[in-house]
Amino acid sequence: MAETERRQNRTLPDRDAPIGVFDSGVGGLTVVREIMRQIPNEKIIYFGDTARVPYGNKSRKTVTRFSQQIVRFLRTFQVKTIVVACNTASAYAMEALEQDIDIPIIGVVKPGARAAVSATGNGRIGVIATEATIGSQIYTKYIQELNQNISIYGKACPLFVPLVEEGLWEDPVTDEIARRYLTELIDIDIDTLILGCTHYPLIRSTLGKIMGERVTLVNPAYETARELRELLIRHGLLREEPPALGSNRYQFYISDKADKFVHFANSIIKYGILSAKTVNIEAY
Amino acid sequence: MAETERRQNRTLPDRDAPIGVFDSGVGGLTVVREIMRQIPNEKIIYFGDTARVPYGNKSRKTVTRFSQQIVRFLRTFQVKTIVVACNTASAYAMEALEQDIDIPIIGVVKPGARAAVSATGNGRIGVIATEATIGSQIYTKYIQELNQNISIYGKACPLFVPLVEEGLWEDPVTDEIARRYLTELIDIDIDTLILGCTHYPLIRSTLGKIMGERVTLVNPAYETARELRELLIRHGLLREEPPALGSNRYQFYISDKADKFVHFANSIIKYGILSAKTVNIEAY
Repeated sequence: MAETERRQNRTLPDRDAPIGVFDSGVGGLTVVREIMRQIPNEKIIYFGDTARVPYGNKSRKTVTRFSQQIVRFLRTFQVKTIVVACNTASAYAMEALEQDIDIPIIGVVKPGARAAVSATGNGRIGVIATEATIGSQIYTKYIQELNQNISIYGKACPLFVPLVEEGLWEDPVTDEIARRYLTELIDIDIDTLILGCTHYPLIRSTLGKIMGERVTLVNPAYETARELRELLIRHGLLREEPPALGSNRYQFYISDKADKFVHFANSIIKYGILSAKTVNIEAY
Repeated sequence: MAETERRQNRTLPDRDAPIGVFDSGVGGLTVVREIMRQIPNEKIIYFGDTARVPYGNKSRKTVTRFSQQIVRFLRTFQVKTIVVACNTASAYAMEALEQDIDIPIIGVVKPGARAAVSATGNGRIGVIATEATIGSQIYTKYIQELNQNISIYGKACPLFVPLVEEGLWEDPVTDEIARRYLTELIDIDIDTLILGCTHYPLIRSTLGKIMGERVTLVNPAYETARELRELLIRHGLLREEPPALGSNRYQFYISDKADKFVHFANSIIKYGILSAKTVNIEAY
């Protein structure tokens, strides 16, 4: 079948279809939380790769393969769009994913980069993220496509994810580690800091306290939900009414062990996640 | 083919064959280090599952599936025995692995349990390990099989692995976190502490300082190498001479990204690991 013919034959996404959202684990729920707030009529299928978490210290090749498996899984729900709610996957896998699929797809990096460019006054932006995201230089690339005169300073903060997952959101140890990671960014006099990992908004108050009031913290989760809304409107895909009562509005899937996920999810979303189903993602 | 026939037809393990060792990542190298020291004539094939690390917060089902894939990979080298150099995999997957294969297999948990039972005077043993290992109660089970009168106190220490991997082996933050985790074990008056995760020997001096001189620290890596030597002798499989020069004495395989592994491996083994090959373990 020729490419054009196949494209004509494909089922166009349905406005009533759910949005697919994925992350390496629980962090992407900060993006889900923003989508719930900003576009509350949407249905969401969330997948968290809890069997293979974290992605932040893994390679482009591995993260891309994992992301492609997840997209194949999400498409079994006929999702109308896909949100890559993980900075590492957005950094490494977006191009490959965009080539694979014919529905709109949005990552967290571009919205975060755009918001930071709008926010900076002195043209000095800091990015904190996983080793993989910093190593990919993806924020630098997107920001400099928007404005070549901006300087970007990246800093990998590998202990933040385990500290957040251990529940130490406000704790002297998290303060101390944050101080070590952030000192060089303070010395460089940045005025804008991108929280380039979906876990980091959960320690926003610690980060804000250390960076001081003069520095704007950019939360890509918030910006992504805002851009997702615009994207849905542009494609005529925004739901105008809430789903019928009793329909499965929010569904959560993970690749390993539901209990801990549900507990952590409820601390982020406070929406009453009752259950998450386990899926063998390697089979996709 | 009948079961007995198949067993007769199988190739008996060769004394000159390598030992297969695996772990979820780099931690198992502390076991490799002990094997190198105690039975220096052996050849070793090491596999670290760096694409899916850590195992310590994952489920029995997932850890067992991962371990079975790795054993299939190691057997392609005709290994004469397999060392499960990961406490979580030893806790969750040993029984399944023992059923699958017909060569000797040894985990780190039983040797650690035996050494702790010999060491304790007051019959109060503490175990520190990952959430999975503690949740499995595997040390409790093995210790009480040896002596029902011993009391075992388990404590999950999920931040130790990321702290070790971040290089904070001697650091005030590691001191503070260790103090929080260990206080209840000190209060309970244990006299023996099992380091139930292969990363923990790397912060042995911090742990020893906090627990005090009266508490014996048991390193299952050391005990495992000792028991492995006995097991090889019992099966007539111990090499008596070093391998020929130029033979690939120690080979390292990982499931993701070699650079970081090599760097970390060299800080543990100090043996000059020059390279590690990457394998797609999901294909096994």
